[in-house]
Amino acid sequence: MTAINNYIESNKDRFLNELLDLLRIPSVSADSKFKDDVRKAATFIQEKLISAGADKAEICETAGHPIVYGEKMVSEDAPTVLVYGHYDVQPADPYELWDSPPFEPVIKETELHPDGAIFARGACDDKGQMYMHIKAFETMMATGALTCNIKFIIEGEEEVGSDNLGIFLEENKEMVKADIVLVSDTGIIANDVPSITVGLRGLSYVEVEVTGPNRDLHSGLYGGAVPNPINILAEMIASLKDDNQRINILGFYNDVVELSAEERAAMAKAPFKLSEFKDSIGLSDIEGETGYNTMERASIRPTLDVNGIWGGYTGEGAKTVIASKAYAKISMRLVPNQDPDKITKLFEEHFKSIAPESVSVKVTPHHGGQPAVTPTDSVAYQAAAKAMETTFGKEPIPFRGGGSIPIVALFEQILGSKTVLMGFGLDSDAIHSPNEHYGLFNYFKGIETIPLFFQNFADMQD
Amino acid sequence: MTAINNYIESNKDRFLNELLDLLRIPSVSADSKFKDDVRKAATFIQEKLISAGADKAEICETAGHPIVYGEKMVSEDAPTVLVYGHYDVQPADPYELWDSPPFEPVIKETELHPDGAIFARGACDDKGQMYMHIKAFETMMATGALTCNIKFIIEGEEEVGSDNLGIFLEENKEMVKADIVLVSDTGIIANDVPSITVGLRGLSYVEVEVTGPNRDLHSGLYGGAVPNPINILAEMIASLKDDNQRINILGFYNDVVELSAEERAAMAKAPFKLSEFKDSIGLSDIEGETGYNTMERASIRPTLDVNGIWGGYTGEGAKTVIASKAYAKISMRLVPNQDPDKITKLFEEHFKSIAPESVSVKVTPHHGGQPAVTPTDSVAYQAAAKAMETTFGKEPIPFRGGGSIPIVALFEQILGSKTVLMGFGLDSDAIHSPNEHYGLFNYFKGIETIPLFFQNFADMQD
Repeated sequence: MTAINNYIESNKDRFLNELLDLLRIPSVSADSKFKDDVRKAATFIQEKLISAGADKAEICETAGHPIVYGEKMVSEDAPTVLVYGHYDVQPADPYELWDSPPFEPVIKETELHPDGAIFARGACDDKGQMYMHIKAFETMMATGALTCNIKFIIEGEEEVGSDNLGIFLEENKEMVKADIVLVSDTGIIANDVPSITVGLRGLSYVEVEVTGPNRDLHSGLYGGAVPNPINILAEMIASLKDDNQRINILGFYNDVVELSAEERAAMAKAPFKLSEFKDSIGLSDIEGETGYNTMERASIRPTLDVNGIWGGYTGEGAKTVIASKAYAKISMRLVPNQDPDKITKLFEEHFKSIAPESVSVKVTPHHGGQPAVTPTDSVAYQAAAKAMETTFGKEPIPFRGGGSIPIVALFEQILGSKTVLMGFGLDSDAIHSPNEHYGLFNYFKGIETIPLFFQNFADMQD
Repeated sequence: MTAINNYIESNKDRFLNELLDLLRIPSVSADSKFKDDVRKAATFIQEKLISAGADKAEICETAGHPIVYGEKMVSEDAPTVLVYGHYDVQPADPYELWDSPPFEPVIKETELHPDGAIFARGACDDKGQMYMHIKAFETMMATGALTCNIKFIIEGEEEVGSDNLGIFLEENKEMVKADIVLVSDTGIIANDVPSITVGLRGLSYVEVEVTGPNRDLHSGLYGGAVPNPINILAEMIASLKDDNQRINILGFYNDVVELSAEERAAMAKAPFKLSEFKDSIGLSDIEGETGYNTMERASIRPTLDVNGIWGGYTGEGAKTVIASKAYAKISMRLVPNQDPDKITKLFEEHFKSIAPESVSVKVTPHHGGQPAVTPTDSVAYQAAAKAMETTFGKEPIPFRGGGSIPIVALFEQILGSKTVLMGFGLDSDAIHSPNEHYGLFNYFKGIETIPLFFQNFADMQD
């Protein structure tokens, strides 16, 4: 057993309990009523960086929630790794669908996590995955294993679009400069199938508002004779896809990079059982864009999903009203080379063009994110792959994920730095959903693997 | 000036203030948190019936909200008029769209009500219109003008489907027996264009639930590869109407009685200006079923409207979720001879049949109501027409309304009694909407006209 493994083993309970303490802070960045809790989480991270051995760790103010910056410089000659993570979490509602309160973590065994998983909002995304890095850093410091300079940027606005991160990077280019960015905010295929994410989808997210009559109307007196904004919104949404589930927005697919037959064949080698996939989310049948399989639909193809819809009377019982307004939140996942700003603009033009004369339409863009592909032939990728091969006992599969981590493009644009996405979560960990959880196996496997990445990355330089 | 007019004139302020007191009671039948207020309104009505001179007035318990029954018998030989009304009101939300609180009535002048209108939930539907009858009764008692037996059924569940009224009528057939039912829960075309409603649409009202995955999913990981219940619900709703806005449910139009060219020509004589109609609700363009004009669409044609829709994330900001479930409340207005139960069944079958295999669908029927047409050649209609002609100075127009008053069919079925719909509201009174109001002109015109109906009805009996 190595010194690193020894140290982790002797501090296992504390490593877990500290994470549970962090999970008890409801740092929901989207909802202003949790503002103080978001800051509390930032202070927690700052303190843990200091106690782990950082030269400095500070709370950096932004126009929104603060960014925690920390660093430990070991040598001018050593390569520098910038660890990125986020301490904010998604809103936890609907609360009633949680089996235990989202901010009171409990550990329970599951089929995929026989050693137990921590159930709490943020357990996987991203508190659990981010905190692995702080405990790996502590471990490297305690065992004298740190051979790279290490910098931490742990932000509090990832779930609301990282609006202030770009400004922070611009203003602190020199301070945050690094040879590689290391992020754990993605997953592995299974606990016995390690993988590294080499592609991510981008995001365009809009809110739409359809207005018909200038006030709510009685459906008996007016029904049939006036435009009903809810019916019209439904029709407009329905028209956004054709029978093959292709998106009907002019120009939407123009910039999409299609994969070659070889690339698709390589993808198809990843272990995937449709029946297990369906069972895991309780579906009897699957659907998606014609001509692509489920794994492809979830990673290399762009999408359009309504994430929320509302209008009219939604309370108990019946109310015969024709609402004045109807609303929806609609997001599009984008693939390389689609540009979020361009797609948002295409959506807005298209959505307004399909509205009947009888209603008015407002489209409000929320945050977007660039799609990204990372190379597998880089030193950093190789360092990560070797680290995982050591701890998992098998070589990880390069994998294209369906989610979006807009900061990957940001680091490239502003710092010129590439990113390695070495995440440890499972797709089934229910991030953004009720009963989010993170396996104890995964948490400790991450803490064990990260120091090896640093070691390999230092060893593999020139 | 008649004794009746004199009495009304001398008691004008009190007649108004009593109604304002009634409007201050938030008797919302749909929402159980107002249960005590609903009962308070029932007690208010009971007391006012007694003080107006009823032989008896009692609160009759039902499985839901109570029914107030009162009567004054003048003679075994006199005809009996059963007055029906309701003291419950629609929910007042969205509260933020009211210019003044819905249960704090205020009087303001409007363009259509230059003498002032009372703004409050229930001002027109139906507290204001119902209370005219109690004050007309008081007036007839005070002036010795009551020449018919009079019975009152004032219920508290009209806005939630009158579920217990039928049971009450069945159990009290003898007690409530009457020659005619008189109801003021409809409107006139304009304050200078009196009309009597001779047709009403029926109602089928359902709630639908579409379930996809068994939990909310992250749209990045799953988007494109799984059925999104909100998108699917939108597509299902959109498919319910064709390009001509005809309803696409097999058999939906089978029983519809089409009007003859003569009947449609007669309808077209009612004063109606499309530009005024559009302006009154802030629309630049109008839509509806091809082949019918606006008045026809709102009265003699069946409809399908979504009254509420919800699902996914509807809070502030952006959440990239694929919801497990999506919901809608959908109502269909029906015309003679459509049967609500049959239509509800057709809807349910159709809606389930159009759902893709990947989702499950639940359809829950709410209350329905039969469409109705009332004859214009009856003694009761003639008595009402003559009364209105006297007070308005011109003959009322027989008119088919778009709303539903399911109790009309109920009285016919259970008691064998016809109904006269002598209402005094305006379509623009915003019933079921924020800023509901009722003109002072209309309130007092009703109190003045009702005694003449009783007088005419007694005189016209052979």
